[in-house]
Amino acid sequence: MQLQYENSFDVKEKIARAQAAILPIGAVEAHGPHLPLGTDNLLAERLAATLAERTGSFVLPTLPYGQVWSLRNFPGSINVSNEALIALLSDIGESLFRQGFRIFVMLNGHLGNATALKEAARKLAEQVPELKVYYFFYPGVKEITAQVRESSSSHASYFHACEIETSYMLYMAGEHVDMSRAICDIPDIGVEADCTPTPWETFTSTAVLGDATLATSEKGRAILETSLDVMTHIVNDAKKRHQPTP
Amino acid sequence: MQLQYENSFDVKEKIARAQAAILPIGAVEAHGPHLPLGTDNLLAERLAATLAERTGSFVLPTLPYGQVWSLRNFPGSINVSNEALIALLSDIGESLFRQGFRIFVMLNGHLGNATALKEAARKLAEQVPELKVYYFFYPGVKEITAQVRESSSSHASYFHACEIETSYMLYMAGEHVDMSRAICDIPDIGVEADCTPTPWETFTSTAVLGDATLATSEKGRAILETSLDVMTHIVNDAKKRHQPTP
Amino acid sequence: MQLQYENSFDVKEKIARAQAAILPIGAVEAHGPHLPLGTDNLLAERLAATLAERTGSFVLPTLPYGQVWSLRNFPGSINVSNEALIALLSDIGESLFRQGFRIFVMLNGHLGNATALKEAARKLAEQVPELKVYYFFYPGVKEITAQVRESSSSHASYFHACEIETSYMLYMAGEHVDMSRAICDIPDIGVEADCTPTPWETFTSTAVLGDATLATSEKGRAILETSLDVMTHIVNDAKKRHQPTP
Amino acid sequence: MQLQYENSFDVKEKIARAQAAILPIGAVEAHGPHLPLGTDNLLAERLAATLAERTGSFVLPTLPYGQVWSLRNFPGSINVSNEALIALLSDIGESLFRQGFRIFVMLNGHLGNATALKEAARKLAEQVPELKVYYFFYPGVKEITAQVRESSSSHASYFHACEIETSYMLYMAGEHVDMSRAICDIPDIGVEADCTPTPWETFTSTAVLGDATLATSEKGRAILETSLDVMTHIVNDAKKRHQPTP
Amino acid sequence: MQLQYENSFDVKEKIARAQAAILPIGAVEAHGPHLPLGTDNLLAERLAATLAERTGSFVLPTLPYGQVWSLRNFPGSINVSNEALIALLSDIGESLFRQGFRIFVMLNGHLGNATALKEAARKLAEQVPELKVYYFFYPGVKEITAQVRESSSSHASYFHACEIETSYMLYMAGEHVDMSRAICDIPDIGVEADCTPTPWETFTSTAVLGDATLATSEKGRAILETSLDVMTHIVNDAKKRHQPTP
Amino acid sequence: MQLQYENSFDVKEKIARAQAAILPIGAVEAHGPHLPLGTDNLLAERLAATLAERTGSFVLPTLPYGQVWSLRNFPGSINVSNEALIALLSDIGESLFRQGFRIFVMLNGHLGNATALKEAARKLAEQVPELKVYYFFYPGVKEITAQVRESSSSHASYFHACEIETSYMLYMAGEHVDMSRAICDIPDIGVEADCTPTPWETFTSTAVLGDATLATSEKGRAILETSLDVMTHIVNDAKKRHQPTP
Repeated sequence: MQLQYENSFDVKEKIARAQAAILPIGAVEAHGPHLPLGTDNLLAERLAATLAERTGSFVLPTLPYGQVWSLRNFPGSINVSNEALIALLSDIGESLFRQGFRIFVMLNGHLGNATALKEAARKLAEQVPELKVYYFFYPGVKEITAQVRESSSSHASYFHACEIETSYMLYMAGEHVDMSRAICDIPDIGVEADCTPTPWETFTSTAVLGDATLATSEKGRAILETSLDVMTHIVNDAKKRHQPTP
Repeated sequence: MQLQYENSFDVKEKIARAQAAILPIGAVEAHGPHLPLGTDNLLAERLAATLAERTGSFVLPTLPYGQVWSLRNFPGSINVSNEALIALLSDIGESLFRQGFRIFVMLNGHLGNATALKEAARKLAEQVPELKVYYFFYPGVKEITAQVRESSSSHASYFHACEIETSYMLYMAGEHVDMSRAICDIPDIGVEADCTPTPWETFTSTAVLGDATLATSEKGRAILETSLDVMTHIVNDAKKRHQPTP
Repeated sequence: MQLQYENSFDVKEKIARAQAAILPIGAVEAHGPHLPLGTDNLLAERLAATLAERTGSFVLPTLPYGQVWSLRNFPGSINVSNEALIALLSDIGESLFRQGFRIFVMLNGHLGNATALKEAARKLAEQVPELKVYYFFYPGVKEITAQVRESSSSHASYFHACEIETSYMLYMAGEHVDMSRAICDIPDIGVEADCTPTPWETFTSTAVLGDATLATSEKGRAILETSLDVMTHIVNDAKKRHQPTP
Repeated sequence: MQLQYENSFDVKEKIARAQAAILPIGAVEAHGPHLPLGTDNLLAERLAATLAERTGSFVLPTLPYGQVWSLRNFPGSINVSNEALIALLSDIGESLFRQGFRIFVMLNGHLGNATALKEAARKLAEQVPELKVYYFFYPGVKEITAQVRESSSSHASYFHACEIETSYMLYMAGEHVDMSRAICDIPDIGVEADCTPTPWETFTSTAVLGDATLATSEKGRAILETSLDVMTHIVNDAKKRHQPTP
Repeated sequence: MQLQYENSFDVKEKIARAQAAILPIGAVEAHGPHLPLGTDNLLAERLAATLAERTGSFVLPTLPYGQVWSLRNFPGSINVSNEALIALLSDIGESLFRQGFRIFVMLNGHLGNATALKEAARKLAEQVPELKVYYFFYPGVKEITAQVRESSSSHASYFHACEIETSYMLYMAGEHVDMSRAICDIPDIGVEADCTPTPWETFTSTAVLGDATLATSEKGRAILETSLDVMTHIVNDAKKRHQPTP
Repeated sequence: MQLQYENSFDVKEKIARAQAAILPIGAVEAHGPHLPLGTDNLLAERLAATLAERTGSFVLPTLPYGQVWSLRNFPGSINVSNEALIALLSDIGESLFRQGFRIFVMLNGHLGNATALKEAARKLAEQVPELKVYYFFYPGVKEITAQVRESSSSHASYFHACEIETSYMLYMAGEHVDMSRAICDIPDIGVEADCTPTPWETFTSTAVLGDATLATSEKGRAILETSLDVMTHIVNDAKKRHQPTP
């Protein structure tokens, strides 16, 4: 169900059936020595493929560039602005609606994109109110994460290249993880980081925020399957609500 | 040499050596019954990989959304605006420069992107004049195309899903071509199409502009290897000019 | 220390001494039957005055309009866009810097402004890097809030016209609270509200998210004095760092 | 009739009755040694309160930042751009209309805002044509001013911290005037100031354009009551025209 | 001294000598039955030519489109936005500076352009501070106009297709005036027109604001020669100040 | 049929008859020693006048500023941005539609404007779909040019101040051509110029791309009359399609 491998002659009817398009969106961003720069792309892409399969939706090609202001000075990071992302995502959403889609899911693998995605979704809610737009960043994982987590979290909302995200990668894209280079680096972030522009080099030199050595595929599975269930449920519900009566 | 599979600890030195980053950019767009919607993405991606290999450059993850105003009403096409593309590409270019790259190649598989790419390159020429920016859309193929082409061209600058582009796909991504559905459809485009906004449904219902049945992998090879030679030469030349003396 | 009550002849020297300018920013927004529409303005304004006094800073006139997308359909709410706020705040920050200020504190009483404030702060970090910019939304209150709170919270990050915010008002602006009309209304918000544009009329008709009847001035004092201590500490620290050696 | 002191449960009906919302808008700007930086805010705010009372309208919280390009280099001035003001005022107007208001009065205390207010009013006239928008900057005072004025005017359209404006302040906000420091400073402005960007430091070091020592509360009363009559008349007329027939 | 009739090989040296470039800017706008739609263009163009001759400056080709919001609903008017004008004028100014010009005169024949011209001049004052920018709209004519005028003025700042402007045309472009169709139409404009968006069809059906039948070439000469003297003086003064010492 | 020489009282009916408005658009740009900077303006203006006459259309005053990025560093060139042009042209088009025009022809004399014109036309196709918009840059001349041309072309799409353009000028505006200074200068442009931002000083010092000495009025006539026939045909056809049935 990869939209870009379909052809124009057959796709129209399939869109009418699928109703939903899932856009993986990630980033190219430093993730320590053991994870690749494209970690957020790989996670978004594979979660999207799974979600598409479980809900009979189309998956769109990955948008692999995200807002990485915080880590833009780390080697290999590529940063794009909120403005550019919002413009591009609004355009994509509007185009999907014209093509007959009624549900647009932005499956996000990178926290830094959250602002742009929410804003784009609100713009689309004005422009094409009949298109239902979702932005997913691991919804519904709070409890299960607390259960499986062994190391403490270094920040209330950030997690990065740590026990948790490395576990995600071990479950979804293990071939891109080098556990032999996994490290434990728990920075003291401090309250100021939430009150003033704070590039991450202020408090970390590794971009790892936790203990990556504790990561396991099993932990990843536990959390991600929980989240996939939540997402599957939401998308299927939306499809039911939007299903045209015959 | 895929940037997103590198890790942040090792990549800095490699960037200094590679100097050049190649961004494949295509589109999701109707290409007739025999070619996939992602044809331009596949071509850009694979040409970029080859060019990266031949020049020792990094290849970036594909930007798979393009300006497809002309075909936006065909099933499956996704259109984004020039403004959004220009903003995103400027951001990427500026970020690459901060990361140490000195050559930024936009390898374009979709003619509709040409305006945005040229404009983004000019903006970057102001903002980061030390970054050399290229936008490639099959450079240097005029003569060889005239030689291998058997069917006539339906327009001075457009070619689409025809003998030529299908040959490209047979050479670079044959597994995505269904020659059993290839058709011949040579529309009469007329001079007005160059003088007024003209969505392609005005003159074609198939989005094929020529005789796709004449396509062969050999024709694709002849043209694309010529173009790859031209691009390889330009990138290598640029690297020589920018090489810091030791 | 209200900047607007100073005159132009005497103010220059005072600015050099004060170094810091504090901008209260709130919103006009529905806050249930017992709290005024200007609740967030009143809180921001009075906290700013206290913080200014404790740190020897200037307080600026209140910016009383904020982004209230979520509650814009409730009677009396006035909504302005992130774009407008970002533009205005960048202008103010740049102007303050030209005037000799070196620390710009945006003291925010309305969660909906958080995106605009963070974005404006980042823009200023590019444009006038020598201006230290803070955005404060009750920093450092997590633990103390958990201690004093008697009712449960209806959302991980939202709190609104509830036990907590009403307690803030009782402590800071009790004359504007009508406890005889305080209500308890704990909506079930659900996970979708964090994944799709969700105006609050979807889950509440009162705009109260909790049990306002449990509010006391004492609870407000406990939390707000904690937060004032944190803010005072941060501002004084910044002043020390920026103090020009004689 | 301060909108921000109303609560959301009761306000809807009151808006329907009031029909009109009055926004005071001023600036933080140098006004010589005897008047505060917030002179334009104080005047706008108190005139708005009076006008609201006389017409049964709501008064909105003051927008205290204005375009002070001409005086931005004087100590204590804070300058914001026309673009930011226009965006914010358009948003406020649109929001007021959604809330049921049908008349939006921008009561302006600062000449530098005139361009932004007129432009915002025109934009609103396109976007929400059913909202009647006014921008008032002391309408109808030409004759009475000529009568009461004892000193000559230094410019055809500027007046600033002079006999006239100081009289306004003595009448409306006398507690903020220090007549012991009032000065007479009548600069020769010259025709070029109307033909080329001319910051006021070019022709004055005090920001006083006239003889402030001649100011009296009585002069202020004469002019401002005339203007209040004009404004009251216009707003009441507009209400009559827009009154929904029962 | 028309820049566009020079050639590129000889012009550089001439620019260095001339220093100043004069841009006529007008509008296409209704001017009653006796004056052409291009009245403001004709006046700007011919005044510019005269001013160029008297000061040894270059005259640029006329920018014939202006902001005519007020009269845009009258037959034949063409309206462009302030934003478009500001952008274009900033570009032109910046380009002139790169070409070696040091004085940029916008000679304006249309009051509606005043906002855009002033704003563009301020933007240029930031971007290219070494370029001196003037915007002229009949400077220095107040006294002489009062002397020659026989009919009363219908508005403090507007004059349009009336005794005055028709006199201008008789003096500068008499061949485009049809005095046999000149009319007298003195509308009662009222104070509201200065306080709310007021398209002119509200108070006139002819677009003539006065008594055009009283116009004479002699009156035009008296006023315009006065204004030309003022402009000549300002430009020559600016040249002296900017003249590079040998 | 010059719109700006009409008056507002008579023009409405004439617009209804004419239906079409033709806007000449050119540039101020280096054109070698033998042609004036305003070459593109002169050509556009005179072709527009002829086309207007042959089709019974209105001609608008010339927009004499264009995008000349490539030649902006040559003496006398004035460059404006695509953004400014697009904004201005959209405004003009929308205004023409309000005035009753149904066909808007942008007659372009400068290749560098092509991007802005095409983009503006597409914007207008969204905003005012009932307005038919054309952008003409010598349509239909390919074959006849190949026939009359004696010198070879230095680039696939550029021609500039050469045999061809000089012939145009000899035919349309001979009084502005100085053939005694015509030169032959055929640069080797190379493939890179189409792949990277390349100001023309990279490959030419004269701005002449060919052999201007071979120019004749007769060649100009042959090509331009062919193109005028094509344009006349297109405009007349459009008029027939749009003609309101009585």
